[in-house]
Amino acid sequence: MSITIYDQLVPVFSHMLSSLDKVLTKAEADAAARKIDLDVFVNGRLAPDMLPLTRQIQIMTDQAKGGASRLAGQDPPKWPDEEANFADLHARIAKTIAHLKTFKPNQFEGAETRSIELKFPNATFNFTGKDYLLKFVMPNFYFHYTTAYAILRHNGVQIGKGDFLGNR
Amino acid sequence: MSITIYDQLVPVFSHMLSSLDKVLTKAEADAAARKIDLDVFVNGRLAPDMLPLTRQIQIMTDQAKGGASRLAGQDPPKWPDEEANFADLHARIAKTIAHLKTFKPNQFEGAETRSIELKFPNATFNFTGKDYLLKFVMPNFYFHYTTAYAILRHNGVQIGKGDFLGNR
Repeated sequence: MSITIYDQLVPVFSHMLSSLDKVLTKAEADAAARKIDLDVFVNGRLAPDMLPLTRQIQIMTDQAKGGASRLAGQDPPKWPDEEANFADLHARIAKTIAHLKTFKPNQFEGAETRSIELKFPNATFNFTGKDYLLKFVMPNFYFHYTTAYAILRHNGVQIGKGDFLGNR
Repeated sequence: MSITIYDQLVPVFSHMLSSLDKVLTKAEADAAARKIDLDVFVNGRLAPDMLPLTRQIQIMTDQAKGGASRLAGQDPPKWPDEEANFADLHARIAKTIAHLKTFKPNQFEGAETRSIELKFPNATFNFTGKDYLLKFVMPNFYFHYTTAYAILRHNGVQIGKGDFLGNR
């Protein structure tokens, strides 16, 4: 009646990141077919005060990187947020999947009760490992994945739920 | 190093559904302040071939209802998808939270290996309970929650990530 933290995070996020990678490849083909400059997608937003595609993917990958690292008791590596085109975004996704691959199930021993502190410029959050995973990392990961997907859909890219879930 | 299926699903989804309920209340106040007919939000979409707000919330609540029921070995109750306004959507959310409250942790005993079959008009999916939760219910729940949130954001409602996560 329980599932390891490794299983909840490492294989699932790797799978979703691979699905995002394929979604981006479809978006590139779509832009080529419709003769749309890829920068339009890179800078696409759902509202003027929402973040563009690049930032959605940077934050999504940060959730995977930070979630796995912190729950395994490590400081997350710092990655500059310099992605500016689709090649950069593919590389960011590949780097994140490679980071996830470095973890072994036993590194998450006791992670559900580990104290996790997140410092932001205007706030500090303190979580147990369990709440950090379930109420922060997981919803944030899918929030930014869905928003990235929705930016492309909003811009007319022909993708569907099967692409999002990676089951086609 | 593991977390029960009950903990992954029941309290977390209840929390997120309560957060969505508050997001809808903010959207109603925003519509009143900007003199916007609430039907504009109810029928809002991110793309002409994406589903409107009502369907996003119906499917999101179906994931919570179906996920908990099937993982506990029960047939999910059938709910007609007749919601047409904000009052109906609040009621749908309340009904879903009430349904989640009927489950006890021990009902998910062995759920991670339970066989789950989902039949759709054009496809049948077979999952273990673990894959059904992690690769179907969880991403779908957040996909439709995020899309509902994004429809409101796209329409200018002043909400933020803290509202989505329910930590403010």
